[in-house]
Amino acid sequence: MKDEQLPQYDEKTRRRIEAMVEAEARYLAQMRRHPRGPLASPARMTGRRGFLAAAAAGASLLPTIVHAKAPPGAVERPVPADPTKEQGTPTNDDGGYGSRSQFESETRWRFGTATRESSWTMTPLENGVGVITPSGLHFERHHGGIATIDPSRHSLLVHGMVDQPKKYSVADIRRFPSISRTMFIECSGNGLTEWSKPTLKTVQGTHGLTSTSEWTGVPLALLLKESGLKPGAKWVLAEGADAAVMTRSIPLEKCLEDAFIAYGQNGEAIRPEQGYPIRLVLPGWEGNTHIKWLRRLEVSDVPFMTREETSKYTDLLPDGRARQFTFVMEAKSVITFPSGEMRLPGPGFYEVTGLAWSGRGKITRLEVSTDGGKSWADAHLQGPVLAICHTRFRFPWFWDGKPAVLQSRATDETGYVQPSLKQLVDVRGLNGPLGSIYHLNAIQSWAVAADGSVSNVHA
Amino acid sequence: MKDEQLPQYDEKTRRRIEAMVEAEARYLAQMRRHPRGPLASPARMTGRRGFLAAAAAGASLLPTIVHAKAPPGAVERPVPADPTKEQGTPTNDDGGYGSRSQFESETRWRFGTATRESSWTMTPLENGVGVITPSGLHFERHHGGIATIDPSRHSLLVHGMVDQPKKYSVADIRRFPSISRTMFIECSGNGLTEWSKPTLKTVQGTHGLTSTSEWTGVPLALLLKESGLKPGAKWVLAEGADAAVMTRSIPLEKCLEDAFIAYGQNGEAIRPEQGYPIRLVLPGWEGNTHIKWLRRLEVSDVPFMTREETSKYTDLLPDGRARQFTFVMEAKSVITFPSGEMRLPGPGFYEVTGLAWSGRGKITRLEVSTDGGKSWADAHLQGPVLAICHTRFRFPWFWDGKPAVLQSRATDETGYVQPSLKQLVDVRGLNGPLGSIYHLNAIQSWAVAADGSVSNVHA
Repeated sequence: MKDEQLPQYDEKTRRRIEAMVEAEARYLAQMRRHPRGPLASPARMTGRRGFLAAAAAGASLLPTIVHAKAPPGAVERPVPADPTKEQGTPTNDDGGYGSRSQFESETRWRFGTATRESSWTMTPLENGVGVITPSGLHFERHHGGIATIDPSRHSLLVHGMVDQPKKYSVADIRRFPSISRTMFIECSGNGLTEWSKPTLKTVQGTHGLTSTSEWTGVPLALLLKESGLKPGAKWVLAEGADAAVMTRSIPLEKCLEDAFIAYGQNGEAIRPEQGYPIRLVLPGWEGNTHIKWLRRLEVSDVPFMTREETSKYTDLLPDGRARQFTFVMEAKSVITFPSGEMRLPGPGFYEVTGLAWSGRGKITRLEVSTDGGKSWADAHLQGPVLAICHTRFRFPWFWDGKPAVLQSRATDETGYVQPSLKQLVDVRGLNGPLGSIYHLNAIQSWAVAADGSVSNVHA
Repeated sequence: MKDEQLPQYDEKTRRRIEAMVEAEARYLAQMRRHPRGPLASPARMTGRRGFLAAAAAGASLLPTIVHAKAPPGAVERPVPADPTKEQGTPTNDDGGYGSRSQFESETRWRFGTATRESSWTMTPLENGVGVITPSGLHFERHHGGIATIDPSRHSLLVHGMVDQPKKYSVADIRRFPSISRTMFIECSGNGLTEWSKPTLKTVQGTHGLTSTSEWTGVPLALLLKESGLKPGAKWVLAEGADAAVMTRSIPLEKCLEDAFIAYGQNGEAIRPEQGYPIRLVLPGWEGNTHIKWLRRLEVSDVPFMTREETSKYTDLLPDGRARQFTFVMEAKSVITFPSGEMRLPGPGFYEVTGLAWSGRGKITRLEVSTDGGKSWADAHLQGPVLAICHTRFRFPWFWDGKPAVLQSRATDETGYVQPSLKQLVDVRGLNGPLGSIYHLNAIQSWAVAADGSVSNVHA
């Protein structure tokens, strides 16, 4: 990376960015070995008459190397020359819990942080279809690694300004009436490399800290009513049982409104890296507040001013003040196809697709620009459009083979319109080592060059 | 099993049923070794004041044995005495594709068929939460085992009464505009053991041949338009690339209405046992018609009268005629908690929950009876209620400790009401070796004994 590209960074920050970009380059090189890594995301073209020739040309871009070894989460099986001429794999040969195909190799990408315990991994959005994120590809953010917890020995304490402190086993919690909700969780640090310069190459790198699951759990209001709230109660401290003992202060109003304690994710127990056996879920709020491996809730009249709400997870403004308790994730969207590091096989018809979401409710409109924001047209929103949930959008595009800049712009049910990067920076400034850090929800631009290659740009 | 319980069965059928029941008993014994097998499904009670003591008593019923070996789909990790005192597992330590907790052991159960290639496995509905079925637990039905297919060598041929036959690579198909749809697929043989007698013990055995995924794919209408239909075209043969070369005839009208060719399931590629790399999806129709490992579509003016629509997958009626092409799965429901082989810890408040679905559209009403059908009350339907999709219902119940019979009854948007077993048998008869075989959608009864034990009964 050339120095002039990072003029405002100090030496230490510059080294961190370089390490990160190198880590991404190694990851991409590794994925290239597989038939369906991010680079092989098919350049999907409609089969309308006249475009099939170009589509066939595109197919030849896909590497056809067969794995020497099964990728993570897959079982290697011999591939018959003609599968109709040999008996297939016996039913339940996987022990009764299936795995993906050996030809599918997409993985979460770990950001190049100094330690592997306080780190994060990102969802390969470029390969996603629909709105559900496979549980095995849900982004991770850990401050002390993934806690391994035996649910029969785990408990949740509710105490503080309550009439009666109570301690619940996981089995106790699962006995309460439950709700399910398909919704996104997004890390407020999603896109933190992108404030000043387009830094990472793929949408996994720029936007992969958001994922959608069907979460199931018990409304927190039920547990708080069970203990009884004392007059003056206004905040609840949520604490995790991980090595970081992650703690955040949550306004009581949110706890009583729609917060829940999740034990289920996509139809089964939540995954270890998502807080097994229980995590707090706060619909629409920054991911850090969804305390994982939840073990304690303390009711108070004031916030607790923990590390993660004072020195971290605040937004430093140009005038030197910091925004604190900026919980809600505002409306945002990104085009996932085509996106960075892909290559369109040639001019023709493409279905542009991507995701839009808002922590404040439903997405009501998604516009796409193919000329860098000069003109906009409405995309189709795939139904059902759910509040506080990834919404898949689709937009038909005839590419004429000339350079183009693709953008998407979301509007949510409050009328809020996703801002341009300039609009956002004008308000928030660039005051951290990487510019700002949290809550980047600006419009993303992908440049399509005349040769079909797609890259991350600021436009 | 006592002979008098199976009076109408011949010797061969009786032996098959006994083998099946024994297989289920072995499976249940195996699951009992784990902390959260079907028998340990927590007897969930609300934490309302006064019931917590009973809840705590229930918790003690859960076995606490730790696995000697990780269950399928899980990675074994050491369990620290206090997870806050040791660094957790590093991020991405799973190779970038996560697995479930080592304390979760639910599996699909294989029905005791003669061969493991022509067999089926059933979803553990008793452990399910929400509506999504984890892809690893989606039911399977194979007639020649699971085909292992390299997508780069797979193709789909569209031919017959078309203007222009076409052959598509998987990459070609993925280039077409796509749709996503969260919906159930149910095998028409779901419940086939239950026509004459309550035979299997758990809801996994009685109802586990239905599962819900978010499916993503290309409308079949687009491919048919691409080839152009000749006048007189009325049926389409769909053929799989498995060892059974599974074939079914589909009315053209359905192909043009809402059929699609799925390549995605729950946000990633469809699983090998679901037809990787592509399967046909026919919303609301019996599972067998959703041809997996799809390789050929032949357009015709008449149905092809394949084995699976003549000797199989027809319904023999009392008058000797057989219903053929009975595609639509009618409205159905089942209580998943409490259900067979569970044991309630004592009198008190329980949230009864289960699933309802209809191949004709949305579920509009779900009633629960706790007295074997004498009286009914409306349950809450968990939103969003989607057409042709499992719908989770919840119903608060105070159990007085006396024997009870729990039932659920679904109504769909056409006004169709799920029938009692007697109503269904009066129309369809009991003409196969196990009674009838396909399309059992009768009301299910679970008897709760005074000691809290739950069992499968006909009531």
